[in-house]
Amino acid sequence: MTSFRSAVSADARSAFLEALRATLPGLQLLTDAAETERYRFDETEYTRPGQPLGVAFPTSTADVSEIVRLAAEHAVPLVPRGAGSGLSGGATAVDGALTVVLTRMDRILEIDRANMAAVVQPGVINADLGRAAAEAGLFYPPDPASFEWCTIGGNIAENSGGLRCVKYGVTRDFVLGLQVVLADGSVIRTGGKNAKDVAGYDLTAIFVGSEGTLGIVTEATLRLVPAPAPKLTLLAFFPSVVAAGAAVAAITEAGIVPVTLELMDAFTVRAVDEWHHLGLDRDAAAMLMIESDAGGARADEELSGAADACLIAGATSVLRAADAVEADWLRQARRAAPGALERAGVARMDDIGVPRACVPQMLSEIERISAEHGLPVGVFGHAGDGNLHPTFVVDRGDPTAERRINAARAAIYASAVALGGTITGEHGTGTAKKGYLELQRGADAVAVMRAIKQALDPAGILNPGKVL
Amino acid sequence: MTSFRSAVSADARSAFLEALRATLPGLQLLTDAAETERYRFDETEYTRPGQPLGVAFPTSTADVSEIVRLAAEHAVPLVPRGAGSGLSGGATAVDGALTVVLTRMDRILEIDRANMAAVVQPGVINADLGRAAAEAGLFYPPDPASFEWCTIGGNIAENSGGLRCVKYGVTRDFVLGLQVVLADGSVIRTGGKNAKDVAGYDLTAIFVGSEGTLGIVTEATLRLVPAPAPKLTLLAFFPSVVAAGAAVAAITEAGIVPVTLELMDAFTVRAVDEWHHLGLDRDAAAMLMIESDAGGARADEELSGAADACLIAGATSVLRAADAVEADWLRQARRAAPGALERAGVARMDDIGVPRACVPQMLSEIERISAEHGLPVGVFGHAGDGNLHPTFVVDRGDPTAERRINAARAAIYASAVALGGTITGEHGTGTAKKGYLELQRGADAVAVMRAIKQALDPAGILNPGKVL
Repeated sequence: MTSFRSAVSADARSAFLEALRATLPGLQLLTDAAETERYRFDETEYTRPGQPLGVAFPTSTADVSEIVRLAAEHAVPLVPRGAGSGLSGGATAVDGALTVVLTRMDRILEIDRANMAAVVQPGVINADLGRAAAEAGLFYPPDPASFEWCTIGGNIAENSGGLRCVKYGVTRDFVLGLQVVLADGSVIRTGGKNAKDVAGYDLTAIFVGSEGTLGIVTEATLRLVPAPAPKLTLLAFFPSVVAAGAAVAAITEAGIVPVTLELMDAFTVRAVDEWHHLGLDRDAAAMLMIESDAGGARADEELSGAADACLIAGATSVLRAADAVEADWLRQARRAAPGALERAGVARMDDIGVPRACVPQMLSEIERISAEHGLPVGVFGHAGDGNLHPTFVVDRGDPTAERRINAARAAIYASAVALGGTITGEHGTGTAKKGYLELQRGADAVAVMRAIKQALDPAGILNPGKVL
Repeated sequence: MTSFRSAVSADARSAFLEALRATLPGLQLLTDAAETERYRFDETEYTRPGQPLGVAFPTSTADVSEIVRLAAEHAVPLVPRGAGSGLSGGATAVDGALTVVLTRMDRILEIDRANMAAVVQPGVINADLGRAAAEAGLFYPPDPASFEWCTIGGNIAENSGGLRCVKYGVTRDFVLGLQVVLADGSVIRTGGKNAKDVAGYDLTAIFVGSEGTLGIVTEATLRLVPAPAPKLTLLAFFPSVVAAGAAVAAITEAGIVPVTLELMDAFTVRAVDEWHHLGLDRDAAAMLMIESDAGGARADEELSGAADACLIAGATSVLRAADAVEADWLRQARRAAPGALERAGVARMDDIGVPRACVPQMLSEIERISAEHGLPVGVFGHAGDGNLHPTFVVDRGDPTAERRINAARAAIYASAVALGGTITGEHGTGTAKKGYLELQRGADAVAVMRAIKQALDPAGILNPGKVL
C-alpha cells in the first residue's frame, strides 16, 4: 500500500488538522487512535490498513469540498468511506491519510415517481432506499448481500452487484447522474434525470466503480423501475456441478431471464443446512435457486421452464415454494451461505467471474486448485451472471493460511482470466486485487487507467494505493 | 472547427502518405478530392467539413494500428468514420486530416448463444447484426432510425439510441467490451463476455459515446437478449400535446414499460399523412405510438392499460393494429416522420432530452420558440424517454434559414437545460453541439472531459474539433 507518511511531515499534518478545525468548526473529527480504529478495516480478510491521521464525518457537499480543498493544499491524502462493508479493501485506512466517512450524509432527497428516479446522499443505506422506493410503488434493483447496512455511496464506489443482476444489471445500470467533489475541491455534476443523454463523455460511468480514487461522490440520481410482482422461488438439487451448470445453460438457451439464478456447491449446502436445518439435500453436489418476479402466468411459465431445464439436466429433486413465507425461508439458504462458511473458521470470500457458459469449467478449476493447495473451499454465487464466490475456509490461527490462500487465489484468477473471465465480478479491485489488474486488462489498458487517474488527481491525494 | 492544415506542413503530409503506402501497400487510399468528397459530410445540415488529406479503408485492427502509429509519428490528425449517418457532425472531414473509414471491417465474428453475446467488427450494419441475432433466437435492441445502413462502430461512437430504449436502454447498455486502437497505435481490450466485471476503471464506458476522440474501436463484444415476442401496436390521437404528455405520464405511473412510446405533433402527423395516406387523424394535435413486445396475455394487458391511460388523458381515438401487417403499416407513420418533413423543404432535425415528466413543458417551449423565430417546426420523438426531435422546416435556398435556425436551436437548448434536460439525447455532440456542452455540463465538468482527452490523446490527433 502506498504510504504518504514519509511524504507528509508531522508539521504539515498538524497544519492540515488545524486548518480543518478552523474552517469547519462544526465538523466531527476523530484523531485518537482508539476512536479511529473501527474505521480502519472493511470486511476483507487479510488486509493491512495503515494508521489514519484522523476520521472526519462531513454532513454536506460543502464540507466535503472544503476537506478536499484543504487536503490538496496541505498534500494530505484522503480515504472516502461508507459503511465499510467492502470486500476488496477499497475503504481501508492509509497511513497518514484522513478517512472521510460519508454515513452522516444519509438523506433520501427525493423519490420522483413521474421520472422514476431517486436523488440520494451517499450515506443512504441500500435497504432504506429500497423501502422508500417501494412506498412509491417503485423498485431499486441492486442488492448486494450487505444491503441492510451498506451505503449507496459504497455501492457506487464499487459498482456493486447482488442477487438480481441476471435480470436487472448492476449498480452502474441504475446511476443516472452524480455530484462529485474533484481532487481540487471543485464540485461537478454528471448526468441527471434524463433517460438518454449523450452530451460529451460519459463521466458518470468513469466515477462509478472508481472506488473514490477519482473524486468523492456526494449525491446520486438513481434510476428506479416499476415495482415487480412478488417472487416465486424454486430450488433444484443436482448430482454434479456439471449438471447444475448444464441447467443454467439450458435456462439461458430457453430465453428465460429469472431475477435470481444462484448456485451453491455441496460444501456450502451442507454448511448452511447444518446451521439452519432447512431440510436441504445434503447429499447433493450442487443446488440452484431460481426466482421469477415476472408475475402471474408469466412467472409460472418461467419457473416451470426452469424446473424442466433442471430435470432434463439431471436434477434429483426440484422444490417449489408454496407461498411467500416458504420462499423467504428458501431464500435464507442462499443468504446464509457466507455466514455458514464462517462458522467453520475464517472464511475468505473471493469474487471472480467468467462468461456464463464457462461456469462448469470454472467450478472444476476451483475444485482442482482447492485440492492442490489443500484448502477447503465452498463455492456459491450468481451462476446466471457467471459470477462465483469461492470461499476458502481455514482454521482461525492457522499461521500458513494467508500464504496458502494467496497462492490459491492467484491460481483461481489465472484460471478465470484464461477462460475470458474477470478477477472481480462485483467486489471491486481495492487493495486486494490491484496486483492482478494487469493480468486481466493488460499493461496498456492499465496504463490508460493510470493516465485517467493522473489527469483527475495529479497529486494522488484521493484514496492512494487503491485500484491501481 | 480546429484546422491542422497550418500545423502540418505540406511536406509532412506527403511524407505521411508515402510512409502509409510503403507500410501498408494493400491499403485502399483515396487522395483525389473528387473521390474523397463523398466522405466529407455526415447527415447533419449546415456543417462545414474541412478538406481531408485523404480517405483510407483499413481492413484489420493491424491496419488501423499502423495508420494511427504513422499519423502520430507525422502529427497528422485522423477522423474515424462509419457509414456517415451521424446527425451531429461527429464524422465530418477535418482540414488536412486522414479520414479512416471502417466500413470494410464488417464481419460478424461470432454469435455466442450460450453467453448471449456477439463479437463484431465496427463496420457491421446495425440491421445485419439484428438479423444474425434473430437467426440464433436472440435480439440486439438498439435501433437508430438509420438502422438499415448505420454501422455498429458509429452507434458506439455516438452511443446511439432508437425506438426501443424505453424498455431496453441505449447502445452503452449493450456494449460488454471493446478492442480499441489508442492515439499511439497501441491496441487495448476493455471488458469481454462477462455479465459482471468491475476490475479497474470502466474503460468501455469512456470510449462509448466519445466519437473517436479517445481511440478507434476495431472490435466490439455486444450483449444480446432473448428474442422478444412479436410486437403489438397501438396509435392514440389527442386534442392537445398536453393531453398526450399526460397519457405518457399515466402510462409510466401505471408501471407499464412499453418497448416503444413515440410522439408526433400535429405538424408531423399531417406531413406524414399527406405523403403516405395512412388515414391518420390530421386534426389531432398529437399522436402517440405505443408498442409492447411482452408477448401473450402480458402484451394485451400492457396495451389495454396504455389505451385506458390515453382515453382517460383525453385521447379522441385509439387504434389497435389487428395483426402484424397492420402494425407494420402503423409503424411506417413514425418511421416516415423525418422524410415527410424533408418533403416540405430543408428539415434540420435536432435532438434534445428532458426528464420524461417535463415533455409537455418542453413541447410548449418548442412551440413558443418556433413562433418567436418564425420557423415552422415538426416535433416527434421518444416521449417515453423524454427524447424529442424538434425539426425545423425551411425553404431550400432561404439565405436567412441557417442563422434563424441556429438562434432557435440555442433557445431550445437553453430551455431543455433549464428543465434539467440535455442538448442531445442520442445524436451526440460532434461539431454541431460542442459550443453548448458547457451550458449543460458546466465548465468544471467539461474541464474533466478535456483532461481525459489530453491524457489519452496528448497530441490531439484523434478526431480534433469534435465533442470538445
